[in-house]
Amino acid sequence: MSGPPPAVAAVRGAVRPGLRASAQPVLVAVSGGADSLALAAAVAFEAPRADVPAGAVTVDHGLQAGSAARAAATADLVRGLGLDPVLVLPADVGTGGGPEGAARTARYAALDGAAAARGARVALGHTLDDQAETVLLGLGRGSGPRSLAGMVAHRPPYWRPLLAVRRSTTREACAALGLPVWDDPWNTDPAHRRSRLRAEALPLLEDVLGGGVAGALARTAGLLREDLDALDALADAERARLLDDGGLPAAELAALPAALRRRVLRGWLRAAGVPDLALVHLTAVDALLTGWRGQGPVTLPGGAEALRTSGRLVLRPAGCRGATARPAADPRPVPQPEEQHP
Amino acid sequence: MSGPPPAVAAVRGAVRPGLRASAQPVLVAVSGGADSLALAAAVAFEAPRADVPAGAVTVDHGLQAGSAARAAATADLVRGLGLDPVLVLPADVGTGGGPEGAARTARYAALDGAAAARGARVALGHTLDDQAETVLLGLGRGSGPRSLAGMVAHRPPYWRPLLAVRRSTTREACAALGLPVWDDPWNTDPAHRRSRLRAEALPLLEDVLGGGVAGALARTAGLLREDLDALDALADAERARLLDDGGLPAAELAALPAALRRRVLRGWLRAAGVPDLALVHLTAVDALLTGWRGQGPVTLPGGAEALRTSGRLVLRPAGCRGATARPAADPRPVPQPEEQHP
Repeated sequence: MSGPPPAVAAVRGAVRPGLRASAQPVLVAVSGGADSLALAAAVAFEAPRADVPAGAVTVDHGLQAGSAARAAATADLVRGLGLDPVLVLPADVGTGGGPEGAARTARYAALDGAAAARGARVALGHTLDDQAETVLLGLGRGSGPRSLAGMVAHRPPYWRPLLAVRRSTTREACAALGLPVWDDPWNTDPAHRRSRLRAEALPLLEDVLGGGVAGALARTAGLLREDLDALDALADAERARLLDDGGLPAAELAALPAALRRRVLRGWLRAAGVPDLALVHLTAVDALLTGWRGQGPVTLPGGAEALRTSGRLVLRPAGCRGATARPAADPRPVPQPEEQHP
Repeated sequence: MSGPPPAVAAVRGAVRPGLRASAQPVLVAVSGGADSLALAAAVAFEAPRADVPAGAVTVDHGLQAGSAARAAATADLVRGLGLDPVLVLPADVGTGGGPEGAARTARYAALDGAAAARGARVALGHTLDDQAETVLLGLGRGSGPRSLAGMVAHRPPYWRPLLAVRRSTTREACAALGLPVWDDPWNTDPAHRRSRLRAEALPLLEDVLGGGVAGALARTAGLLREDLDALDALADAERARLLDDGGLPAAELAALPAALRRRVLRGWLRAAGVPDLALVHLTAVDALLTGWRGQGPVTLPGGAEALRTSGRLVLRPAGCRGATARPAADPRPVPQPEEQHP
């Protein structure tokens, strides 16, 4: 007896280790596209063999005519694969962050709710190609190394087993299994950045740079994530070591490498509840350490100020006394990821 | 009296802090293109005001007909700006690394020699746009985060004061100063990756991602470099702390975050003289820590092997005794930067 077609075997192989590693129930998030359908089919095949309960969830964004009927059809298709339960959830799409962003926010809210209600993890069909596009979108934002680290494979309740699988493989798997794929028109709408990256920018980069760009982007993202996680963990440990009655010793902090020092400051200010921390604020607080010349307090968003006193950095409510040093004009917020993936 | 044209002022402003920070003589590397000519003019103006001796060096690669005459003309032009001495150096272009790579290697060898002979630092005209292209080339290689960190502003004997200046600014500065710019045909030859990135890929990315991509790439590269430098320094410190009679304690090393652990291993093997270290070797040595099940030594390039014995990792000449565990087939070298900038 011959085995399954190679693409089907590849997708099954990608989900197998994660299913065997935990008995937690799985809900596959299914849009009806090739990636999520191939994922649903693979989980439906592998989960019983790993003794893991596996269902699915499809979100009706209610944004296109006939979306309810399409969500119901997708749910039927996935039920036919053997997943149970299969939930159809309405998404409450707001208006913040543009149409793509609002739909994403609503979708993740619905998925979060389903995961919490069922004690399940949610399997997402993001592929290596999605990862490459995410890294390029991050590059375009210029919001720092973390924006290049892409999506993470495991972040409860989310699980992305296909980050090393090509999109072409999921499409082949669906074809081999006779699964009807629904191509979301948004995915090819040139008004959307991700669609144009996919259709124009990545193919050109592949051509100019000699191929393998999507894999290179995904590989670099993975290594970078390890590096940044290590730095974040080291900075958390430094902060825990240095923090004392809510303040930080200036000289010890100033002696840390910039990459750690700024992470310690950011963690300290965030933990203290400073909202909307901008790069300009962080730089001004850092100058209390590295460019100390007796300057006054730094005004921060949310009504606090940071100051250096008796060799320590402390936070207090703004306007307590004396002159305050506002950050220079144009307190641009730290660039925010336009696409936030949990 | 009005000040200099804005582009001229911008380039002068970019070189001023570096010139005032050190009295070391400067040699400007001049190709005759807009970037290096604008740099030469700015250094010629600012260096006397900072009391820094400033000359120039132009390299004749001898690859194109008339290159000697062109190098001489460039030298005359730069002499006219007031730089002294102005050296014309022949480059000994080999064949390794393709035509671009071989020319680059020969050029840096000539510049290294000039810097050493004169006790000078060498100012290079790389701009923000060059930095963005370097990051994209690094992305295409997928050789890890370091390849995305781009070129460094200060690495003796090299100094790149224009990494935050746009190429368009250097061109405007040359036009304003009436300096005749020589456009190296290589820079627009579509057979070269960097030329196609410049002419095709970056403009498309700017269009798709909404502008500001070159600046975003350069900004991210700078932040990333800080992060990676901090990790490298932390790993060096860990290695110094752990290393004992040439060996490393396995349990302590295994407890480090992956990003530090692998850096400690790489530094250890390189310091011990293991050449051509490949990712597959590093992974096999790491498995002696994280996947320990009593496996044999790992054969390394250059006739050494790493093994775990009595709870320690040690290196010894290969083939001493017993079975050795070769890394799996395809010991692909760790991807090397195609463009190496000192």
